[in-house]
Amino acid sequence: MADEFDVIVIGGGPAGENVVDRAVRGGLTAAVVEERLAGGECSYWACVPSKALLRPIDLAGEVRRVPGLSLGEIDVAAVLAHRDEAVGRYDDAGQVRWIEGVPAEFIRGRGRLDGAKRVRVTTEDGGERVLTARQAVVLATGSKAAVPPVPGLAEADPWTSHEVTAATEIPERLVVLGGGVVACEMAQAMHGLGARQTTLLVRGGGLLSRMEPFAGELLAESFAEAGIDVRTGAGVVGIERPEPGGKVTVHLAEGPSLEADELLVATGRRPATHDLGLTSVGLADGANVEVDDSMRATGVPEGWLYAVGDLNGRNLLTHMGKYQARICGDVIAARARGEELSEMRDLADGYGAPQVVFTDPQICAVGRTEAAARQAGFRVRAVDYDMGAVTGAYLLGDGYRGRARAVVDEDRKVLVGVTFAGPGAAELLHAATIAVTAEVPLDRLWHAVPSFPTVSEVWLRLLEAYGL
Amino acid sequence: MADEFDVIVIGGGPAGENVVDRAVRGGLTAAVVEERLAGGECSYWACVPSKALLRPIDLAGEVRRVPGLSLGEIDVAAVLAHRDEAVGRYDDAGQVRWIEGVPAEFIRGRGRLDGAKRVRVTTEDGGERVLTARQAVVLATGSKAAVPPVPGLAEADPWTSHEVTAATEIPERLVVLGGGVVACEMAQAMHGLGARQTTLLVRGGGLLSRMEPFAGELLAESFAEAGIDVRTGAGVVGIERPEPGGKVTVHLAEGPSLEADELLVATGRRPATHDLGLTSVGLADGANVEVDDSMRATGVPEGWLYAVGDLNGRNLLTHMGKYQARICGDVIAARARGEELSEMRDLADGYGAPQVVFTDPQICAVGRTEAAARQAGFRVRAVDYDMGAVTGAYLLGDGYRGRARAVVDEDRKVLVGVTFAGPGAAELLHAATIAVTAEVPLDRLWHAVPSFPTVSEVWLRLLEAYGL
Repeated sequence: MADEFDVIVIGGGPAGENVVDRAVRGGLTAAVVEERLAGGECSYWACVPSKALLRPIDLAGEVRRVPGLSLGEIDVAAVLAHRDEAVGRYDDAGQVRWIEGVPAEFIRGRGRLDGAKRVRVTTEDGGERVLTARQAVVLATGSKAAVPPVPGLAEADPWTSHEVTAATEIPERLVVLGGGVVACEMAQAMHGLGARQTTLLVRGGGLLSRMEPFAGELLAESFAEAGIDVRTGAGVVGIERPEPGGKVTVHLAEGPSLEADELLVATGRRPATHDLGLTSVGLADGANVEVDDSMRATGVPEGWLYAVGDLNGRNLLTHMGKYQARICGDVIAARARGEELSEMRDLADGYGAPQVVFTDPQICAVGRTEAAARQAGFRVRAVDYDMGAVTGAYLLGDGYRGRARAVVDEDRKVLVGVTFAGPGAAELLHAATIAVTAEVPLDRLWHAVPSFPTVSEVWLRLLEAYGL
Repeated sequence: MADEFDVIVIGGGPAGENVVDRAVRGGLTAAVVEERLAGGECSYWACVPSKALLRPIDLAGEVRRVPGLSLGEIDVAAVLAHRDEAVGRYDDAGQVRWIEGVPAEFIRGRGRLDGAKRVRVTTEDGGERVLTARQAVVLATGSKAAVPPVPGLAEADPWTSHEVTAATEIPERLVVLGGGVVACEMAQAMHGLGARQTTLLVRGGGLLSRMEPFAGELLAESFAEAGIDVRTGAGVVGIERPEPGGKVTVHLAEGPSLEADELLVATGRRPATHDLGLTSVGLADGANVEVDDSMRATGVPEGWLYAVGDLNGRNLLTHMGKYQARICGDVIAARARGEELSEMRDLADGYGAPQVVFTDPQICAVGRTEAAARQAGFRVRAVDYDMGAVTGAYLLGDGYRGRARAVVDEDRKVLVGVTFAGPGAAELLHAATIAVTAEVPLDRLWHAVPSFPTVSEVWLRLLEAYGL
């Protein structure tokens, strides 16, 4: 087995896979080093299982809003079994075959940088392989849940996104620390599947604080109606869990303590760059690996190191990691030929990455919020529209509630941000992503007629609200 | 009551309402003449009730594909009651108030052109009013179902879109003549609501013949699985219905006759321009009223006559009628000021109007099909993708089947047509409508990253299939 490759990728998640795919297509040889499962966090312990758990809850919500339909109890065992199927029963044989079919070599083990262009792999059987890259090493190890330094929290061995998406039993009483995407999605999934007492403890003032304020407000209303307890401004001062896996007591800065059967920590992510050998190439252990728009790590001489996905800290989203990976793979292949593909640069992260939150209501956004746009110096005007007033939304269900916002750059008359919040809004987003990314002028968007009666008619209403 | 207005609109459907709204906003006075209900065919006997009937069927289909959910019998009475609510119980008081609030005068009666700038209205009580337009008369009377000249068909008093969307009882056995949008949507709705024996008799070779061939093929598969009988190449030679409202016998060119409890004719539309006074201004009675891109009727001296919506024959779709109406209202107001708003021209109809078919699978398309694009002289390449292979689609339900096609103009590297067929595909369309209308270059579309895991990821797959 040759231990020299054109490209060595550490991390076999979606980003790593895409680098290899594009680099090999560009004529290079490649190896992927992965410690756990090929396919990565996304396929087994994040996007895929979370959506498999959320889909029945979401659909049940839709059914309840449509007169004439009636739903039986959700069969939780069937939902969990379907989740298991969606994650391939945590078996990556298919993904490994895919990588090998690229073709690229799949090496299961822990990879660490060991100086320039060298990767040292500790294999599963405790052996070691030293790999050398002719062109580039690409880091794609992703991120891990960050556990905040609350006394007793780490010792309580709480769930993170990893464990909650793989749940085999649903706790009766669940406390969630956090108010971001993972916290909201998983609170809703667990509550819908039987966690009768679900409590979110949010440090800040509201849910989904990086999005337009109305998004978190609509979600909080929906949670309140469903009986999910959201406590904002909640300070957690200590955790007690005397028995491993047993009851948890959460001590709060104010008010009585909470008892729960399980605790989910969803307060953020940190790059999975600890013990990755970064110091061997002059970078800081455990930090983000900063990159330029070709995905090349800055501050590493001779430019052979690249980083794609969560660990570069740009946008911690599977699709952005994959996008960066496509650029990275193409750029490495081009540079190996002595070319610069100048159009292969990361533009999308700069516009503000698209993101969907699969709660009920679904929330999605691309570009900048109104506040973020102002802060970045844009002269903007935001227009809102009540999505429940769109005929197509009304026809989806009784009492449809939602809201849309378009943020217009007044100097260039293009959209710099769009947010939709409402049931089934997820697929509305890509239209906005195209409009923002292609900087389509408003007076051209005016001629893009939404079909009646779709929810997309909100586009017409937003343009009318703007005065067009 | 003054009988002189700047603008007189004959037809108070969505297109007429939009003309008035924009013209009045532009400083003009206006009247709307409507024989039946303000809000028009769309609100009471087409888009709105059909979608109200289809939504529970569609959602039931989605539920069946999601493990863990179980559905009770559809409560047909509740569905029909909700349809009645969606159409405002066929009461247009709210719509009339809306028109009066524009403000514009609402005149209930039959309007007919009576020479230049004059409209003669036969009012409900049999009286007559003669109205004079200072600036323009706008025709917006829409279209009616065309009943083909099959012996016995007219005498059988069959259902058209009008009656089927207003059904108060569901026939056990329904025969549908036609294979277009209305035929497919209503066959599915009626079958889902209890028309156990639903038979489509399609003259041509397949369903939805104006769309990409795979769309009709996927729909035919879905119909076959549901037990809807689709007979292509079916020649209907005669209809017998001895008792009004009684059993219908449909005689076919080949094979045994069919017995049914009701017959739906959905074989096309004709402009509602008969007995509209067109001959008084030199136009042909009953024909389409041809217009230029400012919606002004061609061939009428002094340019005071306009026509928007179905009767101009451009694209018989509510949203296109409304779009034309916005242009028309703005143009009339501008011309009254002695201005030409050159950017207010109908571009969208020329690109190929967006359309959604709310069947299961949903089918939607914008721009040109591959065949139509070639016929129009474009040098195109079409790329397809199996939507069931998109993770976001797989997560929507077991056995998700769908297909997408992008038609690329190879000379300009822009999309000239996009079609999606698959469950829940309706809201995917607007992204394509923006891409086609704004002629976004493919290499820019490449940077518009679809969110994972949405169905919109098919955009990435289409671009990859193209080679990007």
